[in-house]
Amino acid sequence: MSKKNINVGVIGCGTVGSSFIKGFISKKEIIKKKTGIEIDIVKVFDRDKNKLRLFKNIAAESPDEIIYDKEIDIVVELIGGIDYAYEFVKKSIENKKSVVTANKALISKYGEEIFNLAKEKNVYIGLEASVAGAIPIIKSLKESFIGNKITKILGILNGTTNFILSEMFYKKIKFSEALNMAKKLGYAEANPELDISGFDTGHKILILSYISFGNLFSIDNINVEGIEKIEPVDITYADEFGYRVKLLGICKREGNNIEIRVHPTLLPKNHLLSLVEGVNNAVYVEGDLIGKALFYGEGAGGNAASSSVISDVVDISKKIVSKSYIEENFNSNEKISLKLFDEIETKYYFRFTAIDKPGVLAKISKILGDNNISISSVIQKKDNPEKAVPIIMLTHMAKEKNVKKAIEEINKLDDIKKETVMLRVEEFLF
Amino acid sequence: MSKKNINVGVIGCGTVGSSFIKGFISKKEIIKKKTGIEIDIVKVFDRDKNKLRLFKNIAAESPDEIIYDKEIDIVVELIGGIDYAYEFVKKSIENKKSVVTANKALISKYGEEIFNLAKEKNVYIGLEASVAGAIPIIKSLKESFIGNKITKILGILNGTTNFILSEMFYKKIKFSEALNMAKKLGYAEANPELDISGFDTGHKILILSYISFGNLFSIDNINVEGIEKIEPVDITYADEFGYRVKLLGICKREGNNIEIRVHPTLLPKNHLLSLVEGVNNAVYVEGDLIGKALFYGEGAGGNAASSSVISDVVDISKKIVSKSYIEENFNSNEKISLKLFDEIETKYYFRFTAIDKPGVLAKISKILGDNNISISSVIQKKDNPEKAVPIIMLTHMAKEKNVKKAIEEINKLDDIKKETVMLRVEEFLF
Repeated sequence: MSKKNINVGVIGCGTVGSSFIKGFISKKEIIKKKTGIEIDIVKVFDRDKNKLRLFKNIAAESPDEIIYDKEIDIVVELIGGIDYAYEFVKKSIENKKSVVTANKALISKYGEEIFNLAKEKNVYIGLEASVAGAIPIIKSLKESFIGNKITKILGILNGTTNFILSEMFYKKIKFSEALNMAKKLGYAEANPELDISGFDTGHKILILSYISFGNLFSIDNINVEGIEKIEPVDITYADEFGYRVKLLGICKREGNNIEIRVHPTLLPKNHLLSLVEGVNNAVYVEGDLIGKALFYGEGAGGNAASSSVISDVVDISKKIVSKSYIEENFNSNEKISLKLFDEIETKYYFRFTAIDKPGVLAKISKILGDNNISISSVIQKKDNPEKAVPIIMLTHMAKEKNVKKAIEEINKLDDIKKETVMLRVEEFLF
Repeated sequence: MSKKNINVGVIGCGTVGSSFIKGFISKKEIIKKKTGIEIDIVKVFDRDKNKLRLFKNIAAESPDEIIYDKEIDIVVELIGGIDYAYEFVKKSIENKKSVVTANKALISKYGEEIFNLAKEKNVYIGLEASVAGAIPIIKSLKESFIGNKITKILGILNGTTNFILSEMFYKKIKFSEALNMAKKLGYAEANPELDISGFDTGHKILILSYISFGNLFSIDNINVEGIEKIEPVDITYADEFGYRVKLLGICKREGNNIEIRVHPTLLPKNHLLSLVEGVNNAVYVEGDLIGKALFYGEGAGGNAASSSVISDVVDISKKIVSKSYIEENFNSNEKISLKLFDEIETKYYFRFTAIDKPGVLAKISKILGDNNISISSVIQKKDNPEKAVPIIMLTHMAKEKNVKKAIEEINKLDDIKKETVMLRVEEFLF
């Protein structure tokens, strides 16, 4: 008879941690019935003793009580942040414990080291909750799509920024007002920098790229732009052209080149991704067998994340009770390289603010043409009282480096009265 | 050292079968790299010898050559239909082979027997490809959402009927014309009865309900309506009220009561499900932890299905090489009962065809009122040359049995000139 009971320790008892513990305890019997495995949460630690009040009978005095407990099979790390989490996860693995984590910052930085160490120690890592809350995107990419060559992943991966952009669109309000609304409703943290700067989305798209292509690139080497500079007027003009503005994590593979980037993006209004509102998340995937697929769901909140944590804990429990260790490699030994951001090609949206006099459009167009950028449509507005009018333009496919050079030249024109706004466009049919 | 190579036999080499074999062979090395397991397709059988031409070196003379081959670990059944498939699957399991199948008709009829036999013989069943093509809905319900109490599943599960309804909407054409279009494009079979009658959707929603709730109900005990009777005029009026018409498989749980039904359904236009066009599929799921989730993807075609077959083959291979058998139960021992269709409550759309004279609306309204049906909105059209005008009505929540009774009474009125059209409405916010 093999081992049929699994002990779990939890480090971190905040929103996700407490939801997980409560959720798991209430579903324990059903899970046992379905899998034949008895899984128990035997210890929980949090630095804030108040958070342990509900779980007194299993409260631990220190994380070490969990990490060094020989009876514990799985450590669930839900403290967030990098330094302590890294230490706890590493020590847990060294002590032959499998680890389940929701920590995208940790995995996007130390993922390779963590997975390698886990393989060395014959333990497992679960990270479903680290990306897109309840959406089973990690498992789908890793297992369901294992026969696919994945070519494209586009994700709305951060609920706070998506909420802000939805509010700005529907209520015609400024970024700062929408951010305050998000804070008031508890959708944004007191310090929302990581969200609005795009870095949280960056961590998540790096993880999805790692799972799909086997290479974990550094956040320092990809382009990350946030939504702080988005003005209501650009949301309105995008709408006029038939687009919504969304903060996307984008990952595309062409041959052995991968491009990964995070920035506000114009998306065709009728695309399913454009319809993802509020704090919800969605991930769009293309692969050679699946064609086009989309996953939509709640990206944040204790319950959504704890659904994914439970799933990981159960999966790993099944693996532990079976006797052989099944290794897991994302890396297919292909030499994959990251495309320089300046080399990417996409369509662009520009908003120039120019003196309303003849010849201005000609000057702008000439600079664009000289830089190999061709215009697909343009609207020149006539309603600005200060005589500086907005000229809005969409381009055909152009190279990032050429666009930057052209914008720099255009901004230097005497007729240009404000820094030009540039946004990138994703066009694709469903 | 445990066994690290797995042999697969394939019965059925049509569209999905040949896509699977080709796809698998081309991905074999990557799968080996990722899992450490060597998986080989060693035999393939089809009654039509022509279909085996491409695979001469592994062609079998009879299915028995696969079913009784002691070296084969997994049998992939892709012949479709029920009788032969049932025999092959059963014999394969009896010979201690795991089975992967895309056969929804088979599973929706014999699923319980097949899963019980598999458990008895310590082998596994993979059925991802049986519902919604490439969409990993089975795995998500079984594994990713294992911590959830699922309360609602709504699915566009049949590509043919969804294509026809999309065509009727966009091109303002009749059912028969759209069906011909589907046949011409290869989206409908020569005999599309199983699709357009709703029974294919019925098989699939029964499987999703089985995976989620542990009870496999019979297609004979659920309401199944197809799209044959949908007229363009109802699609137009639905549009005026803000709805799209979609063929849905619906499964809802309330307490230990489950309702399962298949019928054309009015869905709010801005709901993600309404935007699923052409041969695509989508499944919407609600659960206590996940909240609301949606999966979208290609529902048909050899590649989409073979992506799911590959995933099942790899998953089962991993389980086989690990030494312990992990049982799998969908049944949670709850006593779940199927709600009688007459007892369901939903909102309704009616199209009455009535003589255009004073008092008709009052008579209709009285009958509805007497049957506890309250009206939420009504449009009376004035543009019918034959003096019989359409009256279109939406109701608040009402009971199916009352609605049927009321319609019967209304149809008997002298002023009613045609059988009343009744469609059901699903209202829910995303």
